[in-house]
Amino acid sequence: MERLLKKCQIRNQLIRECMAECLGVYVLILFGCGSVAQVVTTEDKKGQYLSINLGFALGVTFGVFVSRGVSGAHLNPAVSLSLCVLGRHSWVKLPFYIFFQVLGAFLAAATVALQYYDAIQAYSGGDLTVTGPTATAGIFSTYPADYLSVWGGIVDQVIGTAALLLCVLALGDHRNSSIPHYLQPVLVGAAVLVIGISMGSNSGYALNPARDFGPRLFTYIAGWGSDVFKAGSSWWWVPIVAPCVGALLGTLIYELMVEVHHPSEQSQSQASCPEDRSDKVGVELEGVEADREKPT
Amino acid sequence: MERLLKKCQIRNQLIRECMAECLGVYVLILFGCGSVAQVVTTEDKKGQYLSINLGFALGVTFGVFVSRGVSGAHLNPAVSLSLCVLGRHSWVKLPFYIFFQVLGAFLAAATVALQYYDAIQAYSGGDLTVTGPTATAGIFSTYPADYLSVWGGIVDQVIGTAALLLCVLALGDHRNSSIPHYLQPVLVGAAVLVIGISMGSNSGYALNPARDFGPRLFTYIAGWGSDVFKAGSSWWWVPIVAPCVGALLGTLIYELMVEVHHPSEQSQSQASCPEDRSDKVGVELEGVEADREKPT
Amino acid sequence: MERLLKKCQIRNQLIRECMAECLGVYVLILFGCGSVAQVVTTEDKKGQYLSINLGFALGVTFGVFVSRGVSGAHLNPAVSLSLCVLGRHSWVKLPFYIFFQVLGAFLAAATVALQYYDAIQAYSGGDLTVTGPTATAGIFSTYPADYLSVWGGIVDQVIGTAALLLCVLALGDHRNSSIPHYLQPVLVGAAVLVIGISMGSNSGYALNPARDFGPRLFTYIAGWGSDVFKAGSSWWWVPIVAPCVGALLGTLIYELMVEVHHPSEQSQSQASCPEDRSDKVGVELEGVEADREKPT
Amino acid sequence: MERLLKKCQIRNQLIRECMAECLGVYVLILFGCGSVAQVVTTEDKKGQYLSINLGFALGVTFGVFVSRGVSGAHLNPAVSLSLCVLGRHSWVKLPFYIFFQVLGAFLAAATVALQYYDAIQAYSGGDLTVTGPTATAGIFSTYPADYLSVWGGIVDQVIGTAALLLCVLALGDHRNSSIPHYLQPVLVGAAVLVIGISMGSNSGYALNPARDFGPRLFTYIAGWGSDVFKAGSSWWWVPIVAPCVGALLGTLIYELMVEVHHPSEQSQSQASCPEDRSDKVGVELEGVEADREKPT
Repeated sequence: MERLLKKCQIRNQLIRECMAECLGVYVLILFGCGSVAQVVTTEDKKGQYLSINLGFALGVTFGVFVSRGVSGAHLNPAVSLSLCVLGRHSWVKLPFYIFFQVLGAFLAAATVALQYYDAIQAYSGGDLTVTGPTATAGIFSTYPADYLSVWGGIVDQVIGTAALLLCVLALGDHRNSSIPHYLQPVLVGAAVLVIGISMGSNSGYALNPARDFGPRLFTYIAGWGSDVFKAGSSWWWVPIVAPCVGALLGTLIYELMVEVHHPSEQSQSQASCPEDRSDKVGVELEGVEADREKPT
Repeated sequence: MERLLKKCQIRNQLIRECMAECLGVYVLILFGCGSVAQVVTTEDKKGQYLSINLGFALGVTFGVFVSRGVSGAHLNPAVSLSLCVLGRHSWVKLPFYIFFQVLGAFLAAATVALQYYDAIQAYSGGDLTVTGPTATAGIFSTYPADYLSVWGGIVDQVIGTAALLLCVLALGDHRNSSIPHYLQPVLVGAAVLVIGISMGSNSGYALNPARDFGPRLFTYIAGWGSDVFKAGSSWWWVPIVAPCVGALLGTLIYELMVEVHHPSEQSQSQASCPEDRSDKVGVELEGVEADREKPT
Repeated sequence: MERLLKKCQIRNQLIRECMAECLGVYVLILFGCGSVAQVVTTEDKKGQYLSINLGFALGVTFGVFVSRGVSGAHLNPAVSLSLCVLGRHSWVKLPFYIFFQVLGAFLAAATVALQYYDAIQAYSGGDLTVTGPTATAGIFSTYPADYLSVWGGIVDQVIGTAALLLCVLALGDHRNSSIPHYLQPVLVGAAVLVIGISMGSNSGYALNPARDFGPRLFTYIAGWGSDVFKAGSSWWWVPIVAPCVGALLGTLIYELMVEVHHPSEQSQSQASCPEDRSDKVGVELEGVEADREKPT
Repeated sequence: MERLLKKCQIRNQLIRECMAECLGVYVLILFGCGSVAQVVTTEDKKGQYLSINLGFALGVTFGVFVSRGVSGAHLNPAVSLSLCVLGRHSWVKLPFYIFFQVLGAFLAAATVALQYYDAIQAYSGGDLTVTGPTATAGIFSTYPADYLSVWGGIVDQVIGTAALLLCVLALGDHRNSSIPHYLQPVLVGAAVLVIGISMGSNSGYALNPARDFGPRLFTYIAGWGSDVFKAGSSWWWVPIVAPCVGALLGTLIYELMVEVHHPSEQSQSQASCPEDRSDKVGVELEGVEADREKPT
């Protein structure tokens, strides 16, 4: 068996990374949208808003565990974009990453729809709608609250994604908190949890163009129809554009408030306690590790 | 005392492993089914669906802590089967593992029934039923939701167990995430938590033939009668067969999407940062450790 | 300031340990009973049963963090007793430990009563009762559910405390799971959480004679009167006696199912991966560490 | 980009620390008050009291992660004060720390008001009030429960802050629990969680003058008017003064019950197991590390 599998080995680094990103986002959406499906179709009996927050948070954690050793686990076009702007990721790879992130989200939405097929039929009476009392499109992608203006939605997504990047960059900044790489997926999940708890009610904290657009595309094809693009005053483009702006804003804030002011590596390593550094060998390896850890 | 205990020492490795698997599943079911009993008999006053999710998740965590040093903590016939197929566990041991896993679940169900005897009597009025308003069989084993077709149930269990194996294999893949062994029980518990949150409402996420069949056998003997096998259009065989299929599917997906494409150990160890590797002595020992850690 | 404090230094090891046990149980009860007070006096508006579970779980975690470096953080007469029976703790110290554990619980109950004085007055209308619609004695110590027989209560407490010891011993067994000492307080807290979730509804999972008797004594003195000893068919002695029996039973099960069968240290250290052992210097020091870690 | 950012580098240590404290408190309040806003404006539909507890707890965790490498992450004037009294922080820096902590809280309150602008308008009908059925001032700062007397409120805040300091000092006392620095932010967050669960209902567990006064000042300016200072019998000064008293009390209790009695470093290092110490180089570096870790 092991030998049979070995025959399928792919050595191309980009293909491996794209497959890892695809699987990572797949896991994220499978657990995230799955938890929404469970809450919606059981009418809050087997879950509540907190379980949706936990579903996306742990979805991110396991999405990162599945992919980080291969691709660095961006799982989010807005994160990939920020890393490109910071010069920590290649611009050439960006479109491939984005495509496979969206693909993973699309496939996961299809899987959730398959797993909850009977439940959605029973709940909605077979009528797949985007709005109304038995609407089920919200299982897959985000829609704004009734009171929210478009500008309010943009502000909401920009602040949310900026907060996400602030946390992610702090967790990956080895001169600030120096967290072991195996804890980072858990803590990134915790960041998504707290954002869902504190910024989820306005428009469902997409924070991620792939997380929102992939499943939306699926619902468009699978029977919910063009309403998925029309609802909420054509809300669909906000969770694509605003997270990119927010990610750049959050990056800028963290860089300007904390990261750029760190003393250079040399002076730092003399002042800091030796335990954090003792197992680092040289500057090149340090760089490799920083590269591998920051993208999370 | 210590000396008295020493006299009982058993040196046979297989017996030790079987006892550890038995105790591990016992702990898992004791906490898992216990939390269902608490929610059912208090009519959601001292717990809710989330506490059932937490009960099974932490049940898995402590089940793994209790047994992993001895048997590798499969705690699930579907996991044991997958590891045999992957060549990481001996086929000869498989029937012993399965028997003691089911035995542990049976004994734990008996313990829960003993601990909640007064509560179940008070809640059900002394009438042990599988369906109806005061049904209590669902404390011990899983039954499908009313709307669920048999095919829907099979799909549900296959997807759920595949997701479990995907997470477990990613956590144990030391070339992907390289998690310290003492954190793996916690993270496997977190995987069970998120599956319960996102895939629990259709049919109670058994994901494990022993977890479902052991307690079902207990209820059959202890007074719930043959309804436990008839209910849900003879649902009982689905959580036995479908998890095995799902476990193999999840294994295949992870292997084909991530694990087989890792560069071989030698080329890897040059590229990666030294801190992850520095304390490994040689290839044989590495192998031993991988063997001990992956099965979780 | 630092110098002023230094003058108060006590060098007697037993006094230091007793103070640490007292403070540890104080923290446990302060958070645990505090969370019950919050749920009761707000009528579930600012908390629910899960928050009580979390309160006791994190109370244990921080109680252990506060005291483990000094006394090993038993925090429970039943745990101290088991360790004496296993030969891992001195019988001479046992009465001192128990007295200071009960004292810590008593003082913490007084603190909770002080902090919630206005809330308890407002909730109960100034009438401190043990039973009835505005009973408040349950904030401090445990009372059985109406349906529970005395035998049912004894069984409940025996099983619960046995499960606790099973988990605690597995966490401390460095030949099984080898968990870093700084994670053990968190995982012991998780064990208390899952027991509260799965075994809390029958009689409030005291599991600890000091946790129950100290606050009960406080309520007796502070105005709830002799009802605190009469209620529940004189329930008060069950959470004192049954946890001791349960702790010994749990110890026996873990020892007989797992711990005594471990191969001896020497043969083990050859088979296991070197990373777990590399930082141990010799057998004596190993012993010291085992001694310090197991009692948790 | 990286190079552009480098031009903005500030080398002054005090400015860097103030910016880090400001950003840390900003993150704390952004998540904390954000979670209250979500619960209030959705009328408990997308959150409940527990999610507020989690919001502040994880807000503290990420606030600490963002700032601890630079400033030690006090994030609380009462903590800064205690550390000055203990001689572990400079008195000269104290006013700067406090000013930037309050500033961070003020700016975060403004951000929450911006993000929840539409939601607050819809919930309150555009009428920003401090009391009454659609009061929204409680999103930003704390107000006492109706039943609470001023003395009761002072006692509540003193006990709560003392409990916080007890936990924080125990977590940072490397001769007691010796927790790796990267786990401390998570455990400090857990301490805030359990305090919110067990001491939150009387007056909202401010425990932090900056957390309460910064947002209160914002609400005063932003339209809630002078009621924010008058409500609750002029409650506003209690969460400023009482936490300072409580912090000193908690520090005193931990020092007198545990820390001052530790044997001196030399005798300790012989008795303890070598694994905790092996990577420390000398006394000066030890000192540096203690300095950096305790303030958390």
